[in-house]
Amino acid sequence: MSDFILYSYFRSSASYRVRIGLALKGIEYEYRPVHLLESGGQQKSDEYRAMNPSAQVPTLVHRGRALGQSLAILQYLDDVVPEPALFPRDPFLRAQVVQACEIVNSGIQPLGNLSVLQELERRHGWGPEAKVEWTAHWVEVGFRSLEGFLTKTASAFCFGNEPGAADAFLVPQVAIALRHHVALDAYPLIGKIYQNCLSLDAVQRAHPDAQPDSPPRTA
Amino acid sequence: MSDFILYSYFRSSASYRVRIGLALKGIEYEYRPVHLLESGGQQKSDEYRAMNPSAQVPTLVHRGRALGQSLAILQYLDDVVPEPALFPRDPFLRAQVVQACEIVNSGIQPLGNLSVLQELERRHGWGPEAKVEWTAHWVEVGFRSLEGFLTKTASAFCFGNEPGAADAFLVPQVAIALRHHVALDAYPLIGKIYQNCLSLDAVQRAHPDAQPDSPPRTA
Repeated sequence: MSDFILYSYFRSSASYRVRIGLALKGIEYEYRPVHLLESGGQQKSDEYRAMNPSAQVPTLVHRGRALGQSLAILQYLDDVVPEPALFPRDPFLRAQVVQACEIVNSGIQPLGNLSVLQELERRHGWGPEAKVEWTAHWVEVGFRSLEGFLTKTASAFCFGNEPGAADAFLVPQVAIALRHHVALDAYPLIGKIYQNCLSLDAVQRAHPDAQPDSPPRTA
Repeated sequence: MSDFILYSYFRSSASYRVRIGLALKGIEYEYRPVHLLESGGQQKSDEYRAMNPSAQVPTLVHRGRALGQSLAILQYLDDVVPEPALFPRDPFLRAQVVQACEIVNSGIQPLGNLSVLQELERRHGWGPEAKVEWTAHWVEVGFRSLEGFLTKTASAFCFGNEPGAADAFLVPQVAIALRHHVALDAYPLIGKIYQNCLSLDAVQRAHPDAQPDSPPRTA
């Protein structure tokens, strides 16, 4: 039995980030699927909320204690399983990685979050097209920031030649971008890093399609 | 001359968080105002973007190196000026504090961000009432999460009896809530912690009204 349990939804980008972090570190864990749409959202049950009051995935349980929020979880993993490191040890470089993570975490993802799109549809009558355009707009705004930032730090990955926390945030956000028809031409570093990440075994194992709760693909 | 320069806008909640962190640590710094509305937004200048590609406040410059994103900055400050600590040293407790910060940072604030409201007005024709209602809605959703979370951790402040990073995120978000007519009755812990924070000299010095770029109050 593993020390780690991950409550995850295959398609959730925040869950995907944590799966990448776990896979990069080679941490074995028990996968517990939480379906965000079935039964009105399994994450909204009292039982789940008792673990994670935000009623969001992912939640990591380690030795009986629950943590939510992907950045908090990745930093925790780096503390309890230090190698390979997801964040640099130098305070300034470390803060730069957190800055890059936050460009995605607070700057892009919240605006295209499922609950936000549901609210725009339910209360403001937005159809599929308006929601796609809205999500794509904030991806573009955020990617301009991230691309600018990466010119100072990137090589094969966001920071040099080893994948880390910033890459774990980049990959799921690029997947969302592609689903929303955002062309990556204007973001050559982001595009290159995404491709380099996809070639990693850890990212392949963390991919939505590789999760137990991913529905079978139709041809 | 101080080692630290803070680019800030008096009314920006992310700037306010960092000002609280600096004040709690007693760090002296040079204040450089960035007006988010004048000249189409001073944060959008090429000069500013070179420092902070997200074109947002705050930016902290320490010994010539620039950092953006409030959480990254507060963690950096804790590394370079360890006492008094904004984050606990224990990995799990530390991650819990980050989780609480993120409930505000990625869960609430981005949805009521100036640029988001400007976009809803410009492209979707939302008037002042719709924007206030939208912002208040996400404050309420986030405060339900945060209040639930704090029942496990709070005492006089978010984590025990000393103020820290989570309080630096809570205070500016409550100020926004009050401006948007959110009643705090349903969030007794948040309301109590807010009042306790306001009584701190550090929070008073960090308050928007106490900043050099705050306009004179009319009676």
